[in-house]
Amino acid sequence: MKAEVIAIGTELIIGHTVNTNATYISEYLNGLGISVHHHITVGDNEKRIIEALELACTRSDLVICTGGLGPTDDDISHDSLAKFLGRSLEKDPEQVKIFEEKYKAYAGHHKTPKINYKQTRVIDKAEVIANPIGTAIGMYLDHNGTSIASFPGVPIEMQAMLENIKEKLVEKLKASGDVGSILSKKIRMTDITESLMAETVIESYKEHNRANPFLAANPSLAPYATLGECYLRITAQGNTENEAQVLIDKTSDILHEIFPDKIFGYGDESLPSVLAKKLLEKNFSLAFAESCTGGLASKMLTDISGASNFTKLNLVTYSNEAKIKLLGLDPKIFDEHGAVSQECAEAMAIGLSKISDCNVNVSITGIAGPGGGTEEKPIGTIYVAVVINGKIEFSEKLKWVARQLTRDQVRELACKKVFWIITKLISN
Amino acid sequence: MKAEVIAIGTELIIGHTVNTNATYISEYLNGLGISVHHHITVGDNEKRIIEALELACTRSDLVICTGGLGPTDDDISHDSLAKFLGRSLEKDPEQVKIFEEKYKAYAGHHKTPKINYKQTRVIDKAEVIANPIGTAIGMYLDHNGTSIASFPGVPIEMQAMLENIKEKLVEKLKASGDVGSILSKKIRMTDITESLMAETVIESYKEHNRANPFLAANPSLAPYATLGECYLRITAQGNTENEAQVLIDKTSDILHEIFPDKIFGYGDESLPSVLAKKLLEKNFSLAFAESCTGGLASKMLTDISGASNFTKLNLVTYSNEAKIKLLGLDPKIFDEHGAVSQECAEAMAIGLSKISDCNVNVSITGIAGPGGGTEEKPIGTIYVAVVINGKIEFSEKLKWVARQLTRDQVRELACKKVFWIITKLISN
Repeated sequence: MKAEVIAIGTELIIGHTVNTNATYISEYLNGLGISVHHHITVGDNEKRIIEALELACTRSDLVICTGGLGPTDDDISHDSLAKFLGRSLEKDPEQVKIFEEKYKAYAGHHKTPKINYKQTRVIDKAEVIANPIGTAIGMYLDHNGTSIASFPGVPIEMQAMLENIKEKLVEKLKASGDVGSILSKKIRMTDITESLMAETVIESYKEHNRANPFLAANPSLAPYATLGECYLRITAQGNTENEAQVLIDKTSDILHEIFPDKIFGYGDESLPSVLAKKLLEKNFSLAFAESCTGGLASKMLTDISGASNFTKLNLVTYSNEAKIKLLGLDPKIFDEHGAVSQECAEAMAIGLSKISDCNVNVSITGIAGPGGGTEEKPIGTIYVAVVINGKIEFSEKLKWVARQLTRDQVRELACKKVFWIITKLISN
Repeated sequence: MKAEVIAIGTELIIGHTVNTNATYISEYLNGLGISVHHHITVGDNEKRIIEALELACTRSDLVICTGGLGPTDDDISHDSLAKFLGRSLEKDPEQVKIFEEKYKAYAGHHKTPKINYKQTRVIDKAEVIANPIGTAIGMYLDHNGTSIASFPGVPIEMQAMLENIKEKLVEKLKASGDVGSILSKKIRMTDITESLMAETVIESYKEHNRANPFLAANPSLAPYATLGECYLRITAQGNTENEAQVLIDKTSDILHEIFPDKIFGYGDESLPSVLAKKLLEKNFSLAFAESCTGGLASKMLTDISGASNFTKLNLVTYSNEAKIKLLGLDPKIFDEHGAVSQECAEAMAIGLSKISDCNVNVSITGIAGPGGGTEEKPIGTIYVAVVINGKIEFSEKLKWVARQLTRDQVRELACKKVFWIITKLISN
């Protein structure tokens, strides 16, 4: 069963909004076992919307449209869909009632904006997909055997509504006969480049007389990279879920043998979530004293729900005065070594350990750019110190591969490296 | 002149990676005056890559491909492009030399990974687009009047390489005769929903006997919304840049009259960047004491380059103990009012003002979820206090529209609201 995503919106096509919906829908459908073969994006333009629908219906069993269901005049997705189908699009009394009740609950009064009534129209022979959050309703309908579903472009609304047609999608998949079981697993690594990861795998497989897993069909491996991380996605097919799982597990074991010290997690795990798990396991608590990362490390740690179980306080000591006042640094450090130095990082972590009431105390000081770099200390020079139970367990300048990075990238990469350093330290 | 973006990569089509490249390229091309009409995404699949190229060449003057130029076997974009064109793809001695020198500078030795030699192949009659960062080179070529450019999928590489063909693109645009001048401007607002913004504009235009600007061709208005913000994009065409600019300015003035207290900025400005500008203007400095936002406010403030000119320290006092120890809170507050209360927020901001050495001291305490909510204090209950020069100038529970929000969204929305509150307070 082949699916396709049509994202509609001038904001997407002119580059004002990132099309995260196509990504979300693809991952969701893949999770159900439905393959996505195409994403198409067009602006709020009737001709191009209809052309996209025509093409999609010739090659896909399921077409998911997002966007263009708002109340303003540029929102024409349902009009275009109705025109493409040659069906009517009429105001529906039931939907008018639902809208008015929803608006009252939302705004506390009945004076509904007129423009929203456009969103109470329903295409002939379509099922309405209710919107539990906003006012834009969706449609689910059949066109010559192709199922078409339309959703608003607002991600949280689309996501909630997609969940509501899950059963229909699974039913359609079953009817198509394309079942069996496809499983996939992401093996996440850090401290290695994508090229080196791929080449290491190929060479190790060759050494053991195994076929190149990047060319294999089942199980197959695919490499990916994001800032400071890369991963291998294992995909396996079996007649049963168990069969597929056995293939996944076997490949996962091989990868662990190849990369004993690079793998940090699986699936949706992140460097912060892995550290959080480890902190909870050890009953440790962690505090940061940040300078150049400006609160990002603390933000990433507290992105994890339940963070109060492993962090109590984090300090962003951006100025020298704050480092002296809050962390008790000797002002001489700045004259003798500068704020971006190993000595300063160590003093920050030690100072933090005296006030934080946490076992693990981590400092980060450096130059994120774009200003502030010198020949001796270029942008990206970052010192990190880790004090665990009163003792300096790590104190180094971060190792980088020399390349151009933006301020945001320097900060994010530094934090990821720090999360991994701490995870390894407390795992020993 | 019509352009189209073809993003190639199984990671995109299965939903593991968001297609930010299409967004970036669209915005870039629009900035040059080149309209983008379609985005297509396909996996690393020869048949579908070739089909996408075929379709794109029938309708677009410029086709930009990204992705699939890596060294591994699944990267087949140049192979597919060569096959589509019926041209050779051969290892190029010049590119081999460049690659080997680049690798040596990068890794410090000459032992180049074998798999990367694939990336030294060049399509017959194509110009090479050099990659200043990585090893994947791009191609620029003509096919029956359509220009095709290929770039790697790694955003920073693609962005640098796109910049390098800017002149070629401008030349092609001029040759197409589609010049004149198109200008656009984003008017950014907060504290208002997209629907209300659009309806207010329509009613005000009607009142002044002006035509609905969302239906107008020149200048035209389009509404957009992101979390906690929305904006109107004004687009205007003129025979000269000056003509277009006059139309933009006139519409911008009208919008300022309609929304005297909602507009916070223009173009790429953000709530933090606008606050930062205002702080610098007033020579003010700002400190945060964060609880539920966990460092995000500090992170957003220090995203702005040169943040050391307006912030010195920020505290993430996540636990009650940290609030007592660092901010000097009376422990009774927690028994009598709880950590999520107006009293606690005020005590935090006052405590902060005594140690921060900053004029503006802001506290944020609340429940970000997904756990911790109660009937009395549901998820999203957030108190904010602002102390300016020793005096409480603001102390309120944040006003939200009742709706489901994730932990990340609650935190981000709270921070944006706080940035706007501070900006208004110090603008008075």
